[in-house]
Amino acid sequence: MYYLPRMKVNIEEKFSLFTDQWSPKIIAELNGQQLKLAKIQGDFVWHDHANEDELFLVYRGTLFLDFRDGSTVSLEPGECYVVPKGVEHRPRTKDGEEVWLMLMEPAETKHTGDVKSELTVEVCERI
Amino acid sequence: MYYLPRMKVNIEEKFSLFTDQWSPKIIAELNGQQLKLAKIQGDFVWHDHANEDELFLVYRGTLFLDFRDGSTVSLEPGECYVVPKGVEHRPRTKDGEEVWLMLMEPAETKHTGDVKSELTVEVCERI
Repeated sequence: MYYLPRMKVNIEEKFSLFTDQWSPKIIAELNGQQLKLAKIQGDFVWHDHANEDELFLVYRGTLFLDFRDGSTVSLEPGECYVVPKGVEHRPRTKDGEEVWLMLMEPAETKHTGDVKSELTVEVCERI
Repeated sequence: MYYLPRMKVNIEEKFSLFTDQWSPKIIAELNGQQLKLAKIQGDFVWHDHANEDELFLVYRGTLFLDFRDGSTVSLEPGECYVVPKGVEHRPRTKDGEEVWLMLMEPAETKHTGDVKSELTVEVCERI
């Protein structure tokens, strides 16, 4: 017999379990990828991920993704975007607005990429 | 300079682009995984994916995932579940209810696994 956890994940419920910002929480894993939730506010650090594409899916608020060519992608709830590997980006929110988002990326991905920052979380918590 | 498509994906809008059932559409790719949308109704075929975990995230309706041990996982909108590789399962809906869902799985995954069925779609369309 296989071991099969019968645990489904309710995304809103998972969002209700934490309040800390810039600290992605793992809610599911598959094929070496992790599905994470995060609450963010303000400007993150510029960074890239040399070998990993990163999916952003917004649940609440407006997420801005700035790129070094001066362009910005703006994501509303229900919208998603894949930042290709090697592309430097900076997640950012409106002043005073907390944004809730889902991330999908390989298990080894650090959210600040190769950039070490006071915001870097070395090991993401599972919730 | 890198090539960076500035295309964000609006999930509701993508759902509005198709009506055919049991025919997953690719809306994004990352790290060898594909994000797909599907509309389903009725009973699918029993199948497994020998080497691929599969994520189901429900947007509309109630999705049932039956397992060979007799158990069923029931997913409402905003709920997700990962079917581990090698685990036989049967997606199913209530009578007469169309269910909208998002799938995440490796690019090589066939939605009917190794089972050939009249429902098998060999190559998923990108929308």
